Amino acid sequence: MRPLQVHTLFLLGLLTTAAAQHFKRLGTCPTLGCILPPDQTDFYPGQLFDVRVEVHAPINGSEASNKGVPDEKFSFCVQSGKNGACQDAAKFFGVHEPALEKWSFTYFEDLFAQDANQPTLVNVASKVYRGINLKKAGEYTATLKYNGRSETVASWVVRSSSRKQTAKNVLFFIGDGMTQSMITAARLIGHKSINGRYQSLMQLDRMDANGIQMTHSIDSFITDSANSATALFTGKKSSVSALNVWADSSPNSFDDPKMETIAELFRRRRKGGALGIVSTAFIGDATPASLCAHTRNRNEEGAVIFEYLESPEAINKTFTWPTNCEQPDVILGGGAEAFLADQVAWQGQDMYKAYRQKGYNVLFTGKDLNAANPKDRTLGIFCTNNMAKWVDRNIIPGNLRNQSNSPTGDGTDAVDQPGLKEMTLKAIDILQARADKNAGWFMMSEAASIDKMMHVLDYDRALGELLELDDTISATMDHLKKIGELDNTLIVVTADHGHGFDVFGSADTKYLTQQSTNILKRRAVGTYEASGSSEFQVAPGARPDNATIVVGPQGPSFPVQWDPRYKLAAGFGANPDHRENYKLTDSGPRLPAVGMGGIFVTNPDDNTDGFDVSGTLGGDEAQGVHSLTDVSIFASGPGAEAFRGVYNNIDIFYKVADAMGLGA
Amino acid sequence: MRPLQVHTLFLLGLLTTAAAQHFKRLGTCPTLGCILPPDQTDFYPGQLFDVRVEVHAPINGSEASNKGVPDEKFSFCVQSGKNGACQDAAKFFGVHEPALEKWSFTYFEDLFAQDANQPTLVNVASKVYRGINLKKAGEYTATLKYNGRSETVASWVVRSSSRKQTAKNVLFFIGDGMTQSMITAARLIGHKSINGRYQSLMQLDRMDANGIQMTHSIDSFITDSANSATALFTGKKSSVSALNVWADSSPNSFDDPKMETIAELFRRRRKGGALGIVSTAFIGDATPASLCAHTRNRNEEGAVIFEYLESPEAINKTFTWPTNCEQPDVILGGGAEAFLADQVAWQGQDMYKAYRQKGYNVLFTGKDLNAANPKDRTLGIFCTNNMAKWVDRNIIPGNLRNQSNSPTGDGTDAVDQPGLKEMTLKAIDILQARADKNAGWFMMSEAASIDKMMHVLDYDRALGELLELDDTISATMDHLKKIGELDNTLIVVTADHGHGFDVFGSADTKYLTQQSTNILKRRAVGTYEASGSSEFQVAPGARPDNATIVVGPQGPSFPVQWDPRYKLAAGFGANPDHRENYKLTDSGPRLPAVGMGGIFVTNPDDNTDGFDVSGTLGGDEAQGVHSLTDVSIFASGPGAEAFRGVYNNIDIFYKVADAMGLGA
Repeated sequence: MRPLQVHTLFLLGLLTTAAAQHFKRLGTCPTLGCILPPDQTDFYPGQLFDVRVEVHAPINGSEASNKGVPDEKFSFCVQSGKNGACQDAAKFFGVHEPALEKWSFTYFEDLFAQDANQPTLVNVASKVYRGINLKKAGEYTATLKYNGRSETVASWVVRSSSRKQTAKNVLFFIGDGMTQSMITAARLIGHKSINGRYQSLMQLDRMDANGIQMTHSIDSFITDSANSATALFTGKKSSVSALNVWADSSPNSFDDPKMETIAELFRRRRKGGALGIVSTAFIGDATPASLCAHTRNRNEEGAVIFEYLESPEAINKTFTWPTNCEQPDVILGGGAEAFLADQVAWQGQDMYKAYRQKGYNVLFTGKDLNAANPKDRTLGIFCTNNMAKWVDRNIIPGNLRNQSNSPTGDGTDAVDQPGLKEMTLKAIDILQARADKNAGWFMMSEAASIDKMMHVLDYDRALGELLELDDTISATMDHLKKIGELDNTLIVVTADHGHGFDVFGSADTKYLTQQSTNILKRRAVGTYEASGSSEFQVAPGARPDNATIVVGPQGPSFPVQWDPRYKLAAGFGANPDHRENYKLTDSGPRLPAVGMGGIFVTNPDDNTDGFDVSGTLGGDEAQGVHSLTDVSIFASGPGAEAFRGVYNNIDIFYKVADAMGLGA
Repeated sequence: MRPLQVHTLFLLGLLTTAAAQHFKRLGTCPTLGCILPPDQTDFYPGQLFDVRVEVHAPINGSEASNKGVPDEKFSFCVQSGKNGACQDAAKFFGVHEPALEKWSFTYFEDLFAQDANQPTLVNVASKVYRGINLKKAGEYTATLKYNGRSETVASWVVRSSSRKQTAKNVLFFIGDGMTQSMITAARLIGHKSINGRYQSLMQLDRMDANGIQMTHSIDSFITDSANSATALFTGKKSSVSALNVWADSSPNSFDDPKMETIAELFRRRRKGGALGIVSTAFIGDATPASLCAHTRNRNEEGAVIFEYLESPEAINKTFTWPTNCEQPDVILGGGAEAFLADQVAWQGQDMYKAYRQKGYNVLFTGKDLNAANPKDRTLGIFCTNNMAKWVDRNIIPGNLRNQSNSPTGDGTDAVDQPGLKEMTLKAIDILQARADKNAGWFMMSEAASIDKMMHVLDYDRALGELLELDDTISATMDHLKKIGELDNTLIVVTADHGHGFDVFGSADTKYLTQQSTNILKRRAVGTYEASGSSEFQVAPGARPDNATIVVGPQGPSFPVQWDPRYKLAAGFGANPDHRENYKLTDSGPRLPAVGMGGIFVTNPDDNTDGFDVSGTLGGDEAQGVHSLTDVSIFASGPGAEAFRGVYNNIDIFYKVADAMGLGA
């Protein structure tokens, strides 16, 4: 269920390196001189960051220069404002002149070069300036001079900030991969409509403000969750797989120039404020990691877990990085393998022990979570890998058996996993109990498996996760009201990217599965008037257009039945070869494609009575992929109106920081 | 290029009736007694409408009753408010007791019944009350009693209205089929991004307010353009193919109960106000028709054109319908075939002549439009069928040749067709010149071929239409400012429905077209980091990540090049069998599938060097289909803030009516 890991599994296959290649020398550097942070970077006043400059000399390829010898005598200066001198960078930043670093790397210029195995070799000379900040709002110009007269210029802007706090607390929900199309589909299955009028609405439909945000990366128009979460939480664009760093070209994943996150800034500037991280993913996954970790490689899961606990400086003593998450007050999610000694944990350590030594109450079950003392710093790890899906926990609980995924590593099943709602509500209580009076708290709560289930084309489970998120937001608002914090809390809900999912009709699954050929099965799809009414909100056996309002076993805002005869016919825009029957996969999350002969092809065991759908992706893709679409953002509470309009994902960081009054 | 007509062409095929069937007896009537307007209908105070009641008696099938004899002694009463008596309807409405009508119809209960050719026969007894209105805001309850103790109850609400006018003029733009995913893709090709920061934005990104609207039909969750435009312009949900009527079960397309449109209401209540209709479709197409026409069947193109000119009463003298569009001041678009004698024109008449007799200046070219006196009532028809696409007009103008589509019917080519921008700007001048002082105007301007090109999976042309719409909005705002009307004009931009389109990566078309097999061609698709930067905004031959800002031949906000090596890889969610190479189809709009052996299969002449993509639709579908997704709505000018939030498409009618102060 982890896209990048499934990828990795197949790296030895025939067609596997296409998606792993940039076909760019370095994304943010179209010329041979590179400045990170690159041109067009914005900062919050005083926000910490590193600066790296690189000079490239390709030995071969279309940009071969200097016989592959990079200019080591480059100069780098920074100018404040429009007038005045460009001052030597070390002096400007007030740091020692950094040592020169040198390395080389290779890349393929395009698919033809890759097929011919003709990489381009690039030699690099570089310097890095650590732990910098710019306090004064305004424009800055950084200039790198190299190869005689060549020049690379980066314009930076320190935005002005608000010191006036409008929100004591911020609760930031991420529906990973959640698009408006998915919200529309979730509304259709979770809410009853009579003659085109919904009888109830999603909580998302009823927030104070809504906007639209653009999700693309710094150097590719399709993003992954690492760099889009980085954008949300640092106000900086970055590259696929990068967590709170600008990707440099060096081989070390941890030496890339870093940027301070909203969590780190909150810890520095709101003394006594409490910090919480909740996710239904493994807790070292990209989105939760984006609050505290700094690495070029999101797969460094062990380091991510280590970095919640320790400063990044502890990973490499040669770095200066004078800010960190200072041990979040509550961390809840999956991913026990990164805590268990001798698995993927940092340096093979028992990280449960390391967390206990720092004062964490370590929990493994929903029952323990419920009973936990909210005054304790709390780590709740409820399974290995990602947490169970809402549909499996609530509709087919037998699927939690035979998983050998106990968070204790004892090989038993993690059958008592809390849901996003239970985790979020308990986390609020912990944050409330642990925050100093009036200091407030910041929490990120992620519905991670909307994305994970869309990747495997399992729309039933993806929409289940989305409805759980919506129910969680609603329950959270009720809870905040009860404890008197609703008016103090800014709630923001958004996604980090989309998937090209949309519903285009209904499918008569009874008819579909009884037909003998692909083209006859496809007849089961009803479009336009034949899409009819949603059968998810009628009692089993009732007509789809039955106007009676029924409440299902999971309560209102969830389907009355999950797998009616007439299902939604949906497409994914991009997919591997697979088979479609539109029925709920009752054995657990779908596996649409499997590796065979060096490529991914239709899983012969999936939807055996469905029709064949040919893939639109390279044979190295086992799953669906992320898409370009803007995503919706919703906000309620103090400062919500700032989230109206259409803007870039990086702007969200500044809006949140301003709401919390983090301007020094 | 007309979805429904392409459908019709194939009605004799093997697998063709699936999508033409409701599998519902009558969409709004789950029981055997039907009230139209059905339960959950809202009205504007004084808005005109018809009422029909039907009692059904199926002879066979799962609901067979009364041996197929409908109760002719049904009673129908209406109650105002919660208390008081339910008064006989004719008395309540102040009309004569209508005559009893009787008919029968058949339908298939599901696909199995259809395959077995076992229709259900339903006999009907009915009455209709014409030209009703409810003046007082509040709740009403209509009750139909039949078959002894059976009862159908409909709750109606007359919303309270604003009499205070906030906007003198309303300009309502429709991007037909336009989703936020398409806007995102259009932004990517039309605007330059450097390091993840757009250097310019769409006009849509810069409007005063944005919201989200739900598009579903009254009785199916996927809508077509007829009933969704009906919702936007009457505040009433209806059925696929219905224009400003609730679909009844009778065979006559023109006797269905009608509802008054915003245009009719504006004509009645804003004396001296001017009315304009502009579309790049044939002007009898569903969206433009939705302002004035009333028919169960959107394909009644001749009647639509007739109804712009005459009251619906002229179609059938037995009807009472005391409102109409009173000959819009300006009508601009395509569709000459509905004006030419002996083609699809109403009763074979020369409709140009009929329009001239009513005082219209009739125009056929962009040049004529430009020169036209704005004081004249104006009809501009610039071609047969839909108008030429922006890409063809601007990038490949040779595609306007050999079309034999002259609006005069002389068989020559319509080579001088204005674009949406030219039509909209001229229409504004006409409305300004013709409106009484301070009476203002209402105009609908439609970018119709976003939808039409998405239907044929031609994303290049669809995005060209979208960029033209955006450019039109921008130019319109400049023009309104220049003439001093910007602050008086509410501009609303939205869509009527979506298509499941999204971009999921880039495609190296050079590599793709040189490979020999499907799976090798699919390697050309780069996802995530390999999606890279958009090459649409760099000069031909420059690297995709080139940071120089270049302006293309069509000016800013359009691609610098339309068919670069690295194109967008996009999917459609639902599609017929076809072949994909992601290149611009340079012979004109795509034709992805053709009929062969009774089903639609991949067009052997389309994208011959592409890879095969198997369809996900029934073999009767020649094209992609509409999708479920909510669509965005944007507004600027007086009253714009009312368009924030998440709501049903019907709500838009009330917001617009209130902005214009049409509350009597």
